[in-house]
Amino acid sequence: MPNQPTNPELRTETAAYLAALEERMQVFFQEQRQILEQISEEALPLLEAIEALSAGGKRLRALLAYWGWRGAGGQAGDQGLVDAGLALELFQTAALIHDDMIDASDTRRGAPSVHRRFEAMHQLKGYKTSPAHFGSSSALLAGDLCLSWSEMAFAAIPQLQQASQARAIFDLMRTEVMAGQYLDVLGEVIPQEEADLALSRAQKVIRYKSAKYSCEHPLVLGGALALGLKAQEDSDLLAGYRAFALPLGEGFQLRDDVLGVFGQPEKTGKPAGDDLREGKRTVLTALTSRSVGKEEALFLEQSLGNPDLSGQEILALQELIRSSGALDEVETIIQAKGDQALEQLAALPLDPLPREALTALAYQALNRSA
Amino acid sequence: MPNQPTNPELRTETAAYLAALEERMQVFFQEQRQILEQISEEALPLLEAIEALSAGGKRLRALLAYWGWRGAGGQAGDQGLVDAGLALELFQTAALIHDDMIDASDTRRGAPSVHRRFEAMHQLKGYKTSPAHFGSSSALLAGDLCLSWSEMAFAAIPQLQQASQARAIFDLMRTEVMAGQYLDVLGEVIPQEEADLALSRAQKVIRYKSAKYSCEHPLVLGGALALGLKAQEDSDLLAGYRAFALPLGEGFQLRDDVLGVFGQPEKTGKPAGDDLREGKRTVLTALTSRSVGKEEALFLEQSLGNPDLSGQEILALQELIRSSGALDEVETIIQAKGDQALEQLAALPLDPLPREALTALAYQALNRSA
Repeated sequence: MPNQPTNPELRTETAAYLAALEERMQVFFQEQRQILEQISEEALPLLEAIEALSAGGKRLRALLAYWGWRGAGGQAGDQGLVDAGLALELFQTAALIHDDMIDASDTRRGAPSVHRRFEAMHQLKGYKTSPAHFGSSSALLAGDLCLSWSEMAFAAIPQLQQASQARAIFDLMRTEVMAGQYLDVLGEVIPQEEADLALSRAQKVIRYKSAKYSCEHPLVLGGALALGLKAQEDSDLLAGYRAFALPLGEGFQLRDDVLGVFGQPEKTGKPAGDDLREGKRTVLTALTSRSVGKEEALFLEQSLGNPDLSGQEILALQELIRSSGALDEVETIIQAKGDQALEQLAALPLDPLPREALTALAYQALNRSA
Repeated sequence: MPNQPTNPELRTETAAYLAALEERMQVFFQEQRQILEQISEEALPLLEAIEALSAGGKRLRALLAYWGWRGAGGQAGDQGLVDAGLALELFQTAALIHDDMIDASDTRRGAPSVHRRFEAMHQLKGYKTSPAHFGSSSALLAGDLCLSWSEMAFAAIPQLQQASQARAIFDLMRTEVMAGQYLDVLGEVIPQEEADLALSRAQKVIRYKSAKYSCEHPLVLGGALALGLKAQEDSDLLAGYRAFALPLGEGFQLRDDVLGVFGQPEKTGKPAGDDLREGKRTVLTALTSRSVGKEEALFLEQSLGNPDLSGQEILALQELIRSSGALDEVETIIQAKGDQALEQLAALPLDPLPREALTALAYQALNRSA
């Protein structure tokens, strides 16, 4: 199965949606620029950071919302879905800005992370006191601003007044992402615990911080917007969406975890083994820990989160994760989640075009290299 | 004029509103607790931190919204205004959590700030790696969560569908607060500049981060909710609200700045001279800088933002600000802003009860000691 859809009709409609989304984003940022300018020209770096970061990205969440809408009978080219896509993408930008602060990441999408961007501005302009503190304060505010903008875009969706379920999905999504992110932070500081506890937490992090957020909620949100007041009656379709998108999202995040350890820097835009230096506790590391001897588990434990890991040490950790069987195990889970997702997708009562679109998105999510 | 209203009717209605707000807040937090519990018990500290911080506070913004509603013809005891008050108070909690990170404040409302709270939890539970990083990551997420919750509460206001202006006010308010906060951060890092530039920035910070947010927008929001679709026709009333609440808010924040330097710790819940240690650039410090000799200006400049200032040095700075005439000057401005606000209030076409309520709130805002 190819990663990119070959059906010209599908390519055209997808391209039209993505173009409308980019245009809406430009207009939105232009409007916000005018508002900020009225406050002070000095506030514009906040916008510029948000705008630069939002320019990247695969728009997976926006596309899932769009095809969720189309699959539930929504018309092609609807502007409300462009607003929904904008809201999802701005939320993602906000989450990335704050995530990178939490993970102390230097880079994002091949460019400096936002706190690093402001840190560099501090140095360039010869500001006084701490560049790092200025960087983190500014990124904190840029993320907050972007969160508000996401909500502004969401509230502008015309269908929302008839679709209270869509609002509930968006709200739940945000709570879950932040709680899941907190569990992730917690996993990095809790000392020595049973491997099963760590594994269970890592699975929750995957589910809430990522799978539901990146796949399930956007798809169901689009569906709920299309169904509007009929969302209750047609709840079978939305339940079917969930049954497809949750395993898809889990597979998507497990793929992300694999890329965080084994990904090629030129494709991921992040240094090799970045997740290891950041000390991310994932299903991959939890499975490794459970499978190796005491000494190797200790080496893994002590290496995770060490920002000064050498290239040699990264290679040794990669080899440990591979030889422990954990990598194969995770690849097997990704395969199983993907199969499960596709099986559920096959059972959904969809028209050919949305079906093909969702199939293509599923393949992209599971087999990506960046 | 007494700080507390003596009219029993006013006292009763105010107390009823505040009681309804507290009850709504309890129910809201209980609902969020159930959602978080479904994700993981481990995520509950986020809620507990938000709940504890939200319990304090004067509810100035909620009360302004309520009386703005009443003054524009809204019925007493309306539940929509309880939702609006909840949204404003949750936004304030979120802003305080992130503000305290930016200002590296240890205390808030007499208790540890949220990042310090999580730092203490890290130490108590014997977590590994950096307590400070765990504290700031957790507070970052608690603030984000609280921002989302604020928006959830806001979106639930039933009158909103008829009052698009109210949504626009809430959106603008958030952008202005974050931009104003960024200007505040910027003011602390920009080296040696003309006193007039610093003064102009400090005035913008007051206006956007505080005056419009704490007074103007809540009042006008309440009015816009009451007027609904008639907000365009009745725009005179809302313009009058602005003419009253903006100077009131400016006076309110100038009072805050004075308290930040001269306030009594047992009343403010913060150490004496806290703003000086934090390096806050205010109208008070800008005016001082402009009025004193070169040597004293340098002393002020070098002292601001030094976290290790001794009690003796705080006293010397207080004396410098006082003897420079800046304190008197700010007190004069507060007086003038207060007079201007009350003059505008007198010109508003209000029923006796809302008029008395807003008058009492204005006196509280301008003459508070905490």
